[in-house]
Order: sequence, then C-alpha cells, then structure tokens
Amino acid sequence: MQLLQTTDKDFSARFKTLVSDRREATVDVSGTVREILADVKVRGDAAVKDYTSRFDHYNPESLHLSASLIAEKAAQCPADVKAALELAAQRIAAFHQKQLPQDIGYTDTVGVKLGLNWVALSQVGIYVPGGRASYPSSLLMNALPAKIAGVERIVMTVPMPGGELNPVVLAAAQIAGVTEIYSIGGAQAIAALAYGTESIAPVDKIVGPGNAYVAEAKRQVFGTVGIDSIAGPSEILVVADSQNNPDWIAWDLLSQAEHDPSAQSILITDSETFAQQVIAAVEQILTTLPTKQVAAASWQNHAAVIIVSDLAQSIPLLNQLAPEHVELCVDNPQLLANQIKCAGSLFLGRHTPEAIGDYLGGPNHVLPTARSARFASGLSVYDFLKRITYLECNQQALQTIGEAAVTLAQAEGLPAHAGSVSVRLQ
Amino acid sequence: MQLLQTTDKDFSARFKTLVSDRREATVDVSGTVREILADVKVRGDAAVKDYTSRFDHYNPESLHLSASLIAEKAAQCPADVKAALELAAQRIAAFHQKQLPQDIGYTDTVGVKLGLNWVALSQVGIYVPGGRASYPSSLLMNALPAKIAGVERIVMTVPMPGGELNPVVLAAAQIAGVTEIYSIGGAQAIAALAYGTESIAPVDKIVGPGNAYVAEAKRQVFGTVGIDSIAGPSEILVVADSQNNPDWIAWDLLSQAEHDPSAQSILITDSETFAQQVIAAVEQILTTLPTKQVAAASWQNHAAVIIVSDLAQSIPLLNQLAPEHVELCVDNPQLLANQIKCAGSLFLGRHTPEAIGDYLGGPNHVLPTARSARFASGLSVYDFLKRITYLECNQQALQTIGEAAVTLAQAEGLPAHAGSVSVRLQ
Repeated sequence: MQLLQTTDKDFSARFKTLVSDRREATVDVSGTVREILADVKVRGDAAVKDYTSRFDHYNPESLHLSASLIAEKAAQCPADVKAALELAAQRIAAFHQKQLPQDIGYTDTVGVKLGLNWVALSQVGIYVPGGRASYPSSLLMNALPAKIAGVERIVMTVPMPGGELNPVVLAAAQIAGVTEIYSIGGAQAIAALAYGTESIAPVDKIVGPGNAYVAEAKRQVFGTVGIDSIAGPSEILVVADSQNNPDWIAWDLLSQAEHDPSAQSILITDSETFAQQVIAAVEQILTTLPTKQVAAASWQNHAAVIIVSDLAQSIPLLNQLAPEHVELCVDNPQLLANQIKCAGSLFLGRHTPEAIGDYLGGPNHVLPTARSARFASGLSVYDFLKRITYLECNQQALQTIGEAAVTLAQAEGLPAHAGSVSVRLQ
Repeated sequence: MQLLQTTDKDFSARFKTLVSDRREATVDVSGTVREILADVKVRGDAAVKDYTSRFDHYNPESLHLSASLIAEKAAQCPADVKAALELAAQRIAAFHQKQLPQDIGYTDTVGVKLGLNWVALSQVGIYVPGGRASYPSSLLMNALPAKIAGVERIVMTVPMPGGELNPVVLAAAQIAGVTEIYSIGGAQAIAALAYGTESIAPVDKIVGPGNAYVAEAKRQVFGTVGIDSIAGPSEILVVADSQNNPDWIAWDLLSQAEHDPSAQSILITDSETFAQQVIAAVEQILTTLPTKQVAAASWQNHAAVIIVSDLAQSIPLLNQLAPEHVELCVDNPQLLANQIKCAGSLFLGRHTPEAIGDYLGGPNHVLPTARSARFASGLSVYDFLKRITYLECNQQALQTIGEAAVTLAQAEGLPAHAGSVSVRLQ
C-alpha cells in the first residue's frame, strides 16, 4: 500500500506511475491456444473430448448436459441461496429491461424514408469458469441481458474438473434462462462455440470471464464471432470523507482486493487521520479474513491511499484512473457523481457497498477495467442487440438528392457509384 | 462470377462454400507494426517524423496542420463538391441526431435509486487514408457521429505522400468539425494517437479505415484505446425480381465491385432470364468502366448470381451471408426487410441504389463486413458514448436486500464481499 498526498512534491510523478501501472501478468499463451483452436476446428468433438480429458480429467460420453442431470444437480442448491439468486435475477432483469431501446423511423422533408431497427443476436455463448471462480452471479449478469435482448439460443459452457458440477451455477443457469449447457472449458470450449462441432452448433458472440487461455482464445476467434471485452483484475476507488465508519470503508477496499492478487483498491480522502484509521482497520481485518492471502497481496502491492485537501480534487484524479468501481461515501454523492466522466459503475452514499452491486443492485457487474472506462462500458442489453439501418428513396426523392451523390462519387473517382445513381436520374 | 440455382443438386455445398469464403488477403505485418509502435512509444515525434520521411517522402517541420494551411487548402475544393459535402453532412447529422439516447434513472419499490447515464468520450482519433482511398465521405461518416455524441476533441490524421493534400478531405474536415489535424499516416499515426507524443496528445478511441498496417496497428493498440471494427472488403447483395431494369442492377453490383478486387457482389433473383440480362449488362458496362481493372477482378473471382424459385427463399440465404449492404429491388421491400436478421444496412425499392447511402442517405456507411453483421452493427453515435451506471441504497433499502447479497457472497467464497454488506446491517 502506498500513501500519497497531493501536497507532496513528487505527487504528480507518483500519481502518473499509479495511473500507468499495468497490473496484469502477461503470459504468452497464444501459440498453445492457436493449436487448440485449429485442432477443434478440424477434429470437432474428438478434439474437445481429448482436451477435456487432458485438462479436466473428465471423460463424458456426451458433452451436452441433459435436462434431467441439470434438474437433479440444480435441486441441490440450498434454498436460501436459490431465493437470493431469484431476488438477484429479478432485480437485474428489472434494470436491464429499461435498457431496451426504441427503433427509429421517419420520412424526411424530401420524401426519403429512413430508420434503424434493433435486432437481437440469434445465438450467444456464455463461458463460465470452473472451480472456485465459477461465480453464479457472473452467470446471471451475462445471461440475463442476452435473454432480455431477445436472444433465442443461450449456450453455456462450464468445465467439470473431475466431473464435479457446482449446483449453484446450475440453479443460476435455470433461473437465467440458459437454453443449452456443455460440460467443457478452456480454449477448447471457446473453439467449439466459435466454430461449432458435431454436437455443438456455433454461436454468433461469446461473453463471460475466463483464465488466460480463455481470454486469448476469445481474442483469436474475434471476427469469426463477436466477443465482450477482456476483463482485467478488479478495481475499486473509494472517495470518503472523515464522517464514515473506517471499518466499513476497510471492508469495501478489501472486497475487491480479495478477488485477485493483482486487484487494486484506492482510497481518496480529505482526512489524514481517517486515512490512518482505514489503513489500521484493513490490517486488523486481514488478520482473520479467510481470503487474506489474496487480499493482503493485493493490498500490499497495488493499493493506494491518496490524501487531498478537498474532495473536489478527487474528480480529475478519478477521471484519469477511470476505475471499474467507484464509491462516493459522502453526504451529497450526486454533486461529485455529476462530474465523473470515466468509471464503470458508481455506488453512491454511505450505505451502498460495491458488493451489493456485484450481486443484486441491478446494474451489471461486468465492467470495464484497466482504464478502459475512458472508452468502454459495462455489459448491457445493447451488447446483445444489433442495429440494422435502412433507406428508401422514391423516384422523386432520388431526383432531389441524387445529383449531389453523383458529384461526390466522381470526386472520389468511383464511376460505378456515380453510374448507379445517374442511370436512375432522367 | 458463379451462377447457382437452388434447384441444383450441389446447391447446398456450393452455397456453404460461398458463405465460408474468406476474401481477405492475410499478409502478416504484425512484426513490423510492433516495432513501429514500440519506437513511437519511446521516441515520440522523432520516430513519427522518421517514418513519415521514409514512407511518405515528406519532412514537415511540424506534424500539426495550421488553421491557415487548412483554410487555404480547403478553399481549393470545387464549389459543387463543397455544396454536395454540405448536403451530405446535413443529412448524415440529421439521422445520427435521432440516435442520441435517453438516460435511465428511477427509484424502485424498496427505495434503491439506480440508473444509467450516457457520457460522451472526451477525445477520439480519426484515421483518414492518403492517396486514392482518401474518401471525404468516410471522414464525414466517422467524424459526424463523434461530433453529435458530444466528443470535444476530434483529432484527424491524414498522410501527405510527397507533401500532397486533398482539398476535398480538408473541406470535409472543416464541415464535420474536426478540431485538430496531423499530416501523418500508417502505423506511426495510430501509435501517436494511442500513446501520444510531444506534439500530439493521446486519444481514447481510434476509428477510420486504413491499409493492412493501419488495421494491424489498431488491433495491437486495442486495450490502450478503443477501436472501431476492422473493415474487410465491401459486399453487396441485391435481391431483385424481373421487373427491374437489368442495367440499373448491373451498375449497383459494380458499385461495390469497383472498391476492391476482393469485394463481393451477389444477385439473388427469381428469373433466370433476368439473371442473364444482368450478367450481360455487367459485361457491357465493364468494357468502358474506368475502374474496370478492379471491378472485373472482383466480378470474376467473387461475384455470384443465385436463382431462386421464389424471392422468399432469399431470406434464409441472406441471413447466412449477413452482407454489409442489401438492396431489395421489389415492389413491397418491407415484406422482405422485416425478415432480415443479419445485414449491415438495407436499401429498399427500385430507386435506392446503395451508393446513395455511401454519400448522403443519412445512415452510416461504416458497416460490418465478413459476416460480422451476425453480431455487429454500423458506426453510430453509440460508438462515441459510454454508459456509466449507478446505484444508491439508503439505510432502509440496504437492510431490505443486503442479507441476500451476503448469502450469495458466502456461497461464492468471498468473505470480504459479505463483510462489506453485513457490517452495515444491524
């Protein structure tokens, strides 16, 4: 953890380092992934089964999970967890339904009809990691926007290391409306979704988090299918005045730190005393936190506490950092929120811990990381819709605007463009 | 050109080949591009100037084009071309203004405030190719959506081979509201926009077409900045009955063929006689077309004419091909249009040649190619906006929904997530 004060002489330099710090380990797995993709493209199911046997120590007869097996396993999900998933799904769905956009269509003053229709993607794949990182909440966050957009075929892949299946993930899949499940993972799952195999029809877009192999496989199949953004380590930036309970803020900072040793937690406050109280609370919580190994590594290596003389100073710093999550733990959070240009999602006031948004606030928890909030947004219904524009001239309308198109086509040296218009003019 | 009939025994196999045909030349320039990017990242302006001297044979003292030089050059744009550009800009702007989305914000039944605000990107770069492919229409199509979204800084790069500048491009830049212009191109321009140099501040997103080096440079800087999609060779699919003038349809097919030897023109018709008339008309036009070298290569190697027994059969074929441009040259185009799920943009009726949309119909001409219309859309105002979501619980609302979040956090094995919520509950 490093402590910075805006009044320090070297603040600018240290803050610049903090902004440009790339926390992601870059292991080059592109060669291995390229081989797996090529193999699945050629050998289909046989290749997928080979890799599943080799990497997951699992040899299913069929890659497809039957409805009865899904139902049997999902029934093992504890009742309180199932109820919580249902509440989460209902709240996430309600928020995403409000995103459904309106088509555009009108006839302009010269008689040209034009417009834009939103059309759902036909089929998408959702990658769900296996093991500990197999988060049912992520499944809801990825599948529900697709469902609400109107995607008819929602295919999920989830590896089953040693044949083990997480009942909570299957319960979430049922609640979210997943239509097919395959018990595969890794680059081979991405290949199967992108190219198709004998038993898995290809999809048009693949979303969902995964390890380095999955991320690289998504990069390589991009173009053949659409993909969501590649998620980096989690980030939280908390802006807090001294009126907060230091314990609450410490828990918030650790809630992201426990995700990944490369996660980053930053506190900006206008009180040095409060900053020291939060730091002490973090150290205290870390002594007993079951995830302390991960959380302490993140805290030690990547956390920062920045002391400003006025919280208004946090805004330009925040817009440069463009963090995934921002908490504004102040009395009038909207005053600061209105000035934020670069962030994934905002958590306003003293009673909105970021984790509430991870599960069931309503907005999506798949958010831009690594400063990509400068140009990117969280996952949404829009990511599962396409826009098809249209144009319709009648004879008179074409006469009115056609000559100008001919002029521009000629200026660009494209005579067949010009000809296709002029042949229709008198 | 190949002729297919749906009644042919081998139709399915041949159509499948047509769908999977990848027309793009894949020269691997990634190594060269990686070097250029790294060099510009380290040496800044000096590196950009070196590459500009080497590749463009141009040695400007300043990379920045002065307002007076822009004004002087733009004044050389012919009056009729300038008037056509202004009509185009006005029509494109009118259509894109209708895309500006509404923010979402509400308080739900348990008292949680939540919403989504659309925020313009702060700064974008627009790459404009030099030489013959330097299309002023593309500049309008890339810059106007950014301007309308509210992007404050719109930076254009355009190489000046031998110091030559296209007055029409500069006139278009003025009309579109470009705020800075630099006389550079190639991978070095993409590097300068992504990383910044002494004289060029970095941007957050880069859009616009370019050659293989530019496309690869955009791929490599993706993540540091956002990029638009990588455009492949142009495509047109014309669905036409026998009531059309074969000459008109021939011109339409050639309007895309003249772009690139790898471009693809496809006609689907229900009349073999009409098909033969169109083919004959294409051959006739090609004898005198100034761009015949390119257009004939595209026509010979990539065009297809598909004869169906009923035009309704064109829809499933079309949705599989997912073409960039679709013309529906029939009396009631809306009947077919309503069934189209995968296409970039539609041109409806007998009087809407695709080229009218290239210049001034209103919808964007930057469209998905290579079947990416299955999952991607044309350029729009949305591409220059971000969504920032927010969530605000008061104490009572958190009491209502908090316990379920704790349950899910515990089920996912994330105790600090659970703690950040439970510490705020009674």
